[in-house]
Amino acid sequence: MSNSANTTLIPAELMQDVFEKILLENGMPHDRSLSCAEIFTQNSIDGVYTHGVNRFPRFVQYLRDGYIVADAEPTLAHKFGGIEQWDGNLAPGPINALFATDRALELAHAHGIACVSLANTNHWMRGGTYGWKAAKAGFIFIGWTNTIANMPAWGALDAKLGNNPFVMAIPYGDEAIVLDMAMSQYSFGALEQAAMKAETLPVPGGYNAAGELSTDPAGILETGRSIPIGFWKGAGFSLLLDILATILSGGASTHELSKTKVEYGVSQVFIAIDPQKLGNHAAIARMLEDIIQDYHASLPMNEKQKISFPGERILATRTRNLAQGIPVLQKVWAEIEGLMSM
Amino acid sequence: MSNSANTTLIPAELMQDVFEKILLENGMPHDRSLSCAEIFTQNSIDGVYTHGVNRFPRFVQYLRDGYIVADAEPTLAHKFGGIEQWDGNLAPGPINALFATDRALELAHAHGIACVSLANTNHWMRGGTYGWKAAKAGFIFIGWTNTIANMPAWGALDAKLGNNPFVMAIPYGDEAIVLDMAMSQYSFGALEQAAMKAETLPVPGGYNAAGELSTDPAGILETGRSIPIGFWKGAGFSLLLDILATILSGGASTHELSKTKVEYGVSQVFIAIDPQKLGNHAAIARMLEDIIQDYHASLPMNEKQKISFPGERILATRTRNLAQGIPVLQKVWAEIEGLMSM
Repeated sequence: MSNSANTTLIPAELMQDVFEKILLENGMPHDRSLSCAEIFTQNSIDGVYTHGVNRFPRFVQYLRDGYIVADAEPTLAHKFGGIEQWDGNLAPGPINALFATDRALELAHAHGIACVSLANTNHWMRGGTYGWKAAKAGFIFIGWTNTIANMPAWGALDAKLGNNPFVMAIPYGDEAIVLDMAMSQYSFGALEQAAMKAETLPVPGGYNAAGELSTDPAGILETGRSIPIGFWKGAGFSLLLDILATILSGGASTHELSKTKVEYGVSQVFIAIDPQKLGNHAAIARMLEDIIQDYHASLPMNEKQKISFPGERILATRTRNLAQGIPVLQKVWAEIEGLMSM
Repeated sequence: MSNSANTTLIPAELMQDVFEKILLENGMPHDRSLSCAEIFTQNSIDGVYTHGVNRFPRFVQYLRDGYIVADAEPTLAHKFGGIEQWDGNLAPGPINALFATDRALELAHAHGIACVSLANTNHWMRGGTYGWKAAKAGFIFIGWTNTIANMPAWGALDAKLGNNPFVMAIPYGDEAIVLDMAMSQYSFGALEQAAMKAETLPVPGGYNAAGELSTDPAGILETGRSIPIGFWKGAGFSLLLDILATILSGGASTHELSKTKVEYGVSQVFIAIDPQKLGNHAAIARMLEDIIQDYHASLPMNEKQKISFPGERILATRTRNLAQGIPVLQKVWAEIEGLMSM
């Protein structure tokens, strides 16, 4: 989102205060109003507006509609060694996901590796949030969520697969390398935005009405046939992520979730590994630095474009948005202000 | 590979006997000659010829050249709870990988989840081998290997990333659902085969000399610029898989591996989860069956094409090749026969 005529710059502190106030007014306990406000604000600071400020009104609507239960707490269903299965009891997704991440780190500290799963939880917003948190605490993180069906299987016409975002994170100095990728080549939001601006996609994003791979976002939205990353490969990956989230958590699958129009009660997995248990930390840091240096030494196609690792460009956005304010569409900010009582 | 004029059908038992004899003659101890012969044969039965019969001569050459040490044993470097780090000591890749898989299953049985990593190991041939093994023993499996650089980072011209095959496997009745995917859209072998037959790829596989995304395999081979699955997404995934394999094992990264022309001494990760520890097995089986039934109910683009889950079509190939013999290029089989002493 660029800072143009119809956007306004909102300071991060103001955004967080407004979010917190609205959540308190909607029955969310004080500590988790603050946590959720921080997460929605941080996602916006980092430039992930779709799972930050732009998503906030829908989050509040789901609280009001009871799809998200403001004060619910997760309860333990099963545990054995480094694995635990929790019922999220439809508590706010970011609160459950923070809890599960913390629990995975505690268990990984004790067992070297751990897997915490959540059934009946809600949209975690940006999966990277939990990857950054784990990595900045010194842990390796692998996690994913299922979603409602929004993508056809490879060779199919109707959506049976979720885009099931998948996250991998690695500590890197004081920061992190964080891969946060959905299984669809483009999100619905990205296709909509490109269609609105009449842009052509840089790579094919789905099928048009003629059944051809297409870079026309409007045509893809018309058929609803977006493509998985790597075509048949991402379709398979999406299916396995859904199966694993479902059987590890004992929760709802993409198929079950898709029986209602509203996406709630999803299944999630949080795996953490404690690399401190593998000795020689200086050597690990050196290996990582060698890999990143070599990667950065890639010859770019376009001399002006730096080759970045996943998560790297977020740091620049973060710095800019903290200094200048977060660019928000004026109509989105007006809607959010409208959620506050006087 | 279809059964045409230049292929011959080799019975599985004969293939395995020939492989075992050759490996024994090349200094491999008896038990591991049998294991390796079984793996190369099973991969061929399953139709993964590139990592079965077609690859066997190169495996023997690497044994003769000392890149693979026929009788080396893995040694433990670090252990803590559910994680262990082993040095593969350049033992045969399939032998080390079978060992690491077994060790991961034992540790997962004790801790619920486990991660075994291998440094200084060798090509495991087909990653699916270890996924099938774990899943048929009742375990969930997530594993990967790094490779030499064979794919540019997104936006780059020169190869800095490996195709780093990634495997996920889930028990499914008496069989398994097994995703086994490299990070490149097409393997080098697949591009070569398509170029030889002057075929057009069904989806873009890389860049041509004009710097355009292309479905012409010959043009892609010319530039060496194959594309990652999901373009920038698979590039990021590949980088993180390499970093994790390197730091978890303390082994060589893609960057290090690429300093020699021969790929040996790679790094691998084997994660296993014991779903038996999460109670209610009947419910798990039912959830899985619901997902698969729904997936199979997808509307196909082409009525004649069944929508299959990862690993599903292998079962048909397995049945056919066991019944009819394994189709092998005559020149490949002649080369293998030439490896035997009289």
